[in-house]
Amino acid sequence: MNHTIIDTIIKTGLQEDLTWGDITTEELIDNQAKSELVLIQKQEGVVAGLEVAHRVFQLVDPTIKWQSIVKDGDFLQEKSKIAKVTGKSRSLLMAERLALNLMQRMSGIATLTRLFVLKANQSSKNVKILDTRKTTPGLRYLEKYAVRMGGGFNHRYNLSDSVLIKDNHLAIMLANGKDPHASIAEMKKRIPHTVKIELEVDTLEQLKSFLDLDIDTYLLDNMSCQQLSDAVSMINGKAFSEASGGISLCNIAEVAATGVDFISVGALTHSAPSLDISLDFA
Amino acid sequence: MNHTIIDTIIKTGLQEDLTWGDITTEELIDNQAKSELVLIQKQEGVVAGLEVAHRVFQLVDPTIKWQSIVKDGDFLQEKSKIAKVTGKSRSLLMAERLALNLMQRMSGIATLTRLFVLKANQSSKNVKILDTRKTTPGLRYLEKYAVRMGGGFNHRYNLSDSVLIKDNHLAIMLANGKDPHASIAEMKKRIPHTVKIELEVDTLEQLKSFLDLDIDTYLLDNMSCQQLSDAVSMINGKAFSEASGGISLCNIAEVAATGVDFISVGALTHSAPSLDISLDFA
Amino acid sequence: MNHTIIDTIIKTGLQEDLTWGDITTEELIDNQAKSELVLIQKQEGVVAGLEVAHRVFQLVDPTIKWQSIVKDGDFLQEKSKIAKVTGKSRSLLMAERLALNLMQRMSGIATLTRLFVLKANQSSKNVKILDTRKTTPGLRYLEKYAVRMGGGFNHRYNLSDSVLIKDNHLAIMLANGKDPHASIAEMKKRIPHTVKIELEVDTLEQLKSFLDLDIDTYLLDNMSCQQLSDAVSMINGKAFSEASGGISLCNIAEVAATGVDFISVGALTHSAPSLDISLDFA
Amino acid sequence: MNHTIIDTIIKTGLQEDLTWGDITTEELIDNQAKSELVLIQKQEGVVAGLEVAHRVFQLVDPTIKWQSIVKDGDFLQEKSKIAKVTGKSRSLLMAERLALNLMQRMSGIATLTRLFVLKANQSSKNVKILDTRKTTPGLRYLEKYAVRMGGGFNHRYNLSDSVLIKDNHLAIMLANGKDPHASIAEMKKRIPHTVKIELEVDTLEQLKSFLDLDIDTYLLDNMSCQQLSDAVSMINGKAFSEASGGISLCNIAEVAATGVDFISVGALTHSAPSLDISLDFA
Amino acid sequence: MNHTIIDTIIKTGLQEDLTWGDITTEELIDNQAKSELVLIQKQEGVVAGLEVAHRVFQLVDPTIKWQSIVKDGDFLQEKSKIAKVTGKSRSLLMAERLALNLMQRMSGIATLTRLFVLKANQSSKNVKILDTRKTTPGLRYLEKYAVRMGGGFNHRYNLSDSVLIKDNHLAIMLANGKDPHASIAEMKKRIPHTVKIELEVDTLEQLKSFLDLDIDTYLLDNMSCQQLSDAVSMINGKAFSEASGGISLCNIAEVAATGVDFISVGALTHSAPSLDISLDFA
Amino acid sequence: MNHTIIDTIIKTGLQEDLTWGDITTEELIDNQAKSELVLIQKQEGVVAGLEVAHRVFQLVDPTIKWQSIVKDGDFLQEKSKIAKVTGKSRSLLMAERLALNLMQRMSGIATLTRLFVLKANQSSKNVKILDTRKTTPGLRYLEKYAVRMGGGFNHRYNLSDSVLIKDNHLAIMLANGKDPHASIAEMKKRIPHTVKIELEVDTLEQLKSFLDLDIDTYLLDNMSCQQLSDAVSMINGKAFSEASGGISLCNIAEVAATGVDFISVGALTHSAPSLDISLDFA
Repeated sequence: MNHTIIDTIIKTGLQEDLTWGDITTEELIDNQAKSELVLIQKQEGVVAGLEVAHRVFQLVDPTIKWQSIVKDGDFLQEKSKIAKVTGKSRSLLMAERLALNLMQRMSGIATLTRLFVLKANQSSKNVKILDTRKTTPGLRYLEKYAVRMGGGFNHRYNLSDSVLIKDNHLAIMLANGKDPHASIAEMKKRIPHTVKIELEVDTLEQLKSFLDLDIDTYLLDNMSCQQLSDAVSMINGKAFSEASGGISLCNIAEVAATGVDFISVGALTHSAPSLDISLDFA
Repeated sequence: MNHTIIDTIIKTGLQEDLTWGDITTEELIDNQAKSELVLIQKQEGVVAGLEVAHRVFQLVDPTIKWQSIVKDGDFLQEKSKIAKVTGKSRSLLMAERLALNLMQRMSGIATLTRLFVLKANQSSKNVKILDTRKTTPGLRYLEKYAVRMGGGFNHRYNLSDSVLIKDNHLAIMLANGKDPHASIAEMKKRIPHTVKIELEVDTLEQLKSFLDLDIDTYLLDNMSCQQLSDAVSMINGKAFSEASGGISLCNIAEVAATGVDFISVGALTHSAPSLDISLDFA
Repeated sequence: MNHTIIDTIIKTGLQEDLTWGDITTEELIDNQAKSELVLIQKQEGVVAGLEVAHRVFQLVDPTIKWQSIVKDGDFLQEKSKIAKVTGKSRSLLMAERLALNLMQRMSGIATLTRLFVLKANQSSKNVKILDTRKTTPGLRYLEKYAVRMGGGFNHRYNLSDSVLIKDNHLAIMLANGKDPHASIAEMKKRIPHTVKIELEVDTLEQLKSFLDLDIDTYLLDNMSCQQLSDAVSMINGKAFSEASGGISLCNIAEVAATGVDFISVGALTHSAPSLDISLDFA
Repeated sequence: MNHTIIDTIIKTGLQEDLTWGDITTEELIDNQAKSELVLIQKQEGVVAGLEVAHRVFQLVDPTIKWQSIVKDGDFLQEKSKIAKVTGKSRSLLMAERLALNLMQRMSGIATLTRLFVLKANQSSKNVKILDTRKTTPGLRYLEKYAVRMGGGFNHRYNLSDSVLIKDNHLAIMLANGKDPHASIAEMKKRIPHTVKIELEVDTLEQLKSFLDLDIDTYLLDNMSCQQLSDAVSMINGKAFSEASGGISLCNIAEVAATGVDFISVGALTHSAPSLDISLDFA
Repeated sequence: MNHTIIDTIIKTGLQEDLTWGDITTEELIDNQAKSELVLIQKQEGVVAGLEVAHRVFQLVDPTIKWQSIVKDGDFLQEKSKIAKVTGKSRSLLMAERLALNLMQRMSGIATLTRLFVLKANQSSKNVKILDTRKTTPGLRYLEKYAVRMGGGFNHRYNLSDSVLIKDNHLAIMLANGKDPHASIAEMKKRIPHTVKIELEVDTLEQLKSFLDLDIDTYLLDNMSCQQLSDAVSMINGKAFSEASGGISLCNIAEVAATGVDFISVGALTHSAPSLDISLDFA
Repeated sequence: MNHTIIDTIIKTGLQEDLTWGDITTEELIDNQAKSELVLIQKQEGVVAGLEVAHRVFQLVDPTIKWQSIVKDGDFLQEKSKIAKVTGKSRSLLMAERLALNLMQRMSGIATLTRLFVLKANQSSKNVKILDTRKTTPGLRYLEKYAVRMGGGFNHRYNLSDSVLIKDNHLAIMLANGKDPHASIAEMKKRIPHTVKIELEVDTLEQLKSFLDLDIDTYLLDNMSCQQLSDAVSMINGKAFSEASGGISLCNIAEVAATGVDFISVGALTHSAPSLDISLDFA
């Protein structure tokens, strides 16, 4: 993990939670007291975020010792031990909540991703489950990492690194008298050769009208399974196909069966419940 | 809302999503194109975050106009219009995702809080539903605001502004040969007169042993409903009582019926699914 | 001490004093030269800030060694040695001024606080001397710490963590046609249960009119000693009383004799002269 | 004033005082309430900091109106009106303390500086009173400005912009076997031609030994008035002379009478009591 | 242009140049003086950076008026007027150097890029001239923009947004017993579908061995023109080809004649001399 | 070197180049792989920036070992080894480009400076070659250091630390009805005694009119060699003389022969081509 990124997240979190200290701990716990605490995953699921949690303790107090028992991506039974943390009791208590808040969220995302992957694999071994940009502001790096730990794959990181032409782009071009087809063809000549292009279509007619443009991926938005199958046939292996919109654990197997290459699921990051993790006195 | 705080959150979010621009929009949409878009709440629920979403558009482009149609805390039916945003198409597209990511999360929290409040009120009109420190790192200010919009109340903001003595504090004191009862009595003489004290107890015996300390609030952790009722009787109105641990929509009415003053629910902030909101071309 | 906070203060100070280096030292002192310097308190008084001064040297050069001879809160005679610092001469010279500027201010505050405490204790053993929010912008954390080192106690940290209703709040409510009494009663239902309420009153009539509100502390502003005594009687132990306004070393014993619980003194932080401390070549 | 600098100071101050809002004001004062408040200087003295105070209100709320009645550097009688501020009551109350904390400190420094200047001018019309680097970390820019408002002059801003060779430099060079006289002569060839050199001497012998070096200013540290007079004679107009060390309002006239060009006084910035200023409901 | 990015660059530049003000201007120029100045391009070349220069003046003083006379990408004759800036003389003088430093560098890069493009086009109309990551730390966004203004195209922005496997990657894999061919094939399954892959090869044999991998672009490093021609034949339109290494204005036409798709030139950003631009009193 | 300054530059550079990681390296290189790489100067020239490059590797990964082979300011033949860097292969690859970008620029500046110095010394042994404020925004500290490594000298650092009255100052004063001569005389009484004054003149008449002002340095802008000689005679050793404007390697020897004390050359920092340095697998 890139420490420049996670240190910024952690410092923001510490500033928020420890603004001018931990009044309870500073008053009640002796400065020289030491403890050994154990991180326990209280529910079954995929653990993610050990390095981040470790780094929270390190930034609060460089003398704290951390010993991992499992590793990111492991599927753990309930009551599994994740890691041991040993050191000044004051520091452990001050770092506890932030370490847990980050890890519970990451593990929750990894666990939900795994469920989507398992369901999708029931009808397609090759389909990839993708995240979206519907991440928590400030935590995208961690959340996309958690998706990978759950067996998912990442879509583009942000607006800068890949072209994704969406319905609003098309609507605005039309409203301004620009021909989307010609504009996209023009754009291809200007963007860096390192950048791929994805195009969102809502209907088969729309798909058909853009098929000659040599787009890298077609985003098939809110289509029925029948439409998705037809779209896959029309694309015929000349580009990737991605299904999105209204995907849930209930219908993902059916969507996967249409033969699309990718299924993107916003819920992975915007609606994953936290996984219960606690820091217990050993 | 405090703009110093929300501007920091928004700038972090923009930096993450727009690192070196929006390659799609800059290539396809004319710089002078203008649009009117409408924020739509696609599911029923409590809306929260209008001011934040408005501020996202403002920081991306000060010339964008925002017109609110509803206000934070309103319970909206599905497909309700939230606000109109008008201005440069490029700016609208660049701000869209961050505005939605923040608002969907806040509205999700407000909506889940409302459900807990309604359930609890079925058996107690006076009980207050509280949040915890189990918030998303970096977004605590917004999430605690969203809890209030859903009819909930806030617990302490962070480790600096109120004393909350938890099980680990007691365990560490004992492990270090300190008498918790005497230590807490001592602490009361030193902390600012503006600070309140809350104490977590797990058993009625523990509660009994601390009752003479004139604590402001007792946090009754993971007790059965019978134990909660007994604890409320023992406290007898001389302090506040707060139930916590294992609270869900299934059991909250029962917990509320025990007569506790507050019920704190971590799930309000760590496990609320996003509410679906979109920005549509008008 | 919370290093996140003090490191920010120290980095700001270093940036200010060492903007693009120490032109004198870099030109005259060899890079490999080492020295041992001694921090000396040249006036008698209460020392405060050893950890901060130590941290200044550490941040300038992690290889510098620091050895404390006394500890924060000690009352020292003039010419007492505070600590020895050993290491690269260049680093010592670059860190010197900032370390001294912080420590002289903190020790000045601790020393002045001690004088107020001693005077007040002449007529009341129980009265506590409090600081205010009249601190140096950016240094509140250090200044409130220094007050404690001098035997004083802290009032609230800032506007976020405790309610203090002041004369301007009352005046503005009245000017806007709001009834302060009813408004405060309403407010009590909304604020977190962890937050205390303090109310400023200027007259006994005002005090009387608010006595039924179950306020935690009454701030008795600019009252005569007779009024203070009467106010203490009226409150009759049902709330705390705090005297403020026009307190000096001349009148504090008299104020303390009125029986108030607290006396707050802005001068502790806004008008304490620095204590003279120097860094001498051993 | 350079807004880049003062905005940083103000944002730090607001973050410190308004961390997650002003709980009292947000609960009691209606969002649409407006007020007119008046800044009053309650003690006589030199006012300083109007632009900074104005900027505090602006940064809290750009819609607040500010109307200056006096200007920085004016000597005001007690109870003088400084400025009127009009706008949202909530914003005024949130900005009040920081605006006052900055202005009270700046006006205190300007007022103390004026006293030193007046005393010194009793025996010398030409002597200049200088500040030092003994300023509050983070506020040097404002404090040096305040010194000018009181009639004083600024010494170097920091370690980067001017050479000042102090006793510790000389001691360390000697301890490392370097000849200070030769080293200074060498240094003069390397430093930018835009940089001046000042040298601290403690004795007349020391002064004599360095007189041939064509130094710009001699800092005469802790000398008696007789020694200062002799030093001035020895320098004989070929360089500037600066007296420092142990200067107080009691002895400054006597020191000024020795004919030194400058007298530097650390107390201007490290020990000036605040000037009492309040924000009153008009 | 993305203001979040350029504002950060500008604030860093202002902090560097105006640390505690402009001592000359503040002393000599009246606060109310106004001036009209004209930006003049003193050499012929491609102008770039008008928006950045405009923003420098705006951030120093929002009341300054800017009127563009030409636009970015225009090729100007010597002594051409670029823009008029009108407003407070003090602000104009304080912003001048930073505005010029940025614009001179950007225009220098645009001008040099144009020379490379013109030379390359002599032998190939389709070849694109690309920049590299050899940019000035902190200014990459501006420098890549300037390359586009000169008629060049951008390579990847940074290490995060595109795969580029270089000689050191291959060497390290081999040294660690990993098979590069198999590793790259594996990697293709894991990276986001939005990411393209480019591979650096130094010899035709190396190229041949990787041709089956369906790489998007081959970077042909330091090859002779004969080798480049052969490589282009071998690739045969199934991927893009990029020549790099040792490209100068002397040999670029010859390189372009080999039929490569792209030629990347580090010198565009690391060795472009500034274009002379001045701000003259109108 | 001042680590506070260079760390800020390096962190900005890493954020720019490694925004959310190095996708190529993280996918292809094993986390435990280690390598030894060698920094090679591929062209002859003056090396500068070893400490900065070392610090880049350290900040990316504190476990990397660095071993310098030469030192800043050394003139190296082509293909000289500069340093060995050993450690985790991933870290080395992530730090490589930034370390090289900084060092190549600094070495380019040092090398060009050396050329100007050598040429100037052909006709004057005493003349000093100076840099200007025409530096890369954000990198001034490093670029001024590089000038010294090449045998040049630094002019003032920024607008805050020295007075330099330029043509625009004079023009604006005149346009506003202020007498420059009188204004400068007045200014001398107010500025700190540690600050020197330099004045730009374009003609001998202008020089003559200001000669009585006891200015420290006269900046002789865009004068012919004859004018420069005459100006040196007029100044007659009572102040320093600095030639500037239109200086190139072609004419600097001639300019130096006029007897001016300093020659300032903007090209040293704004137009130095990078020196070619690479990091090779050992």
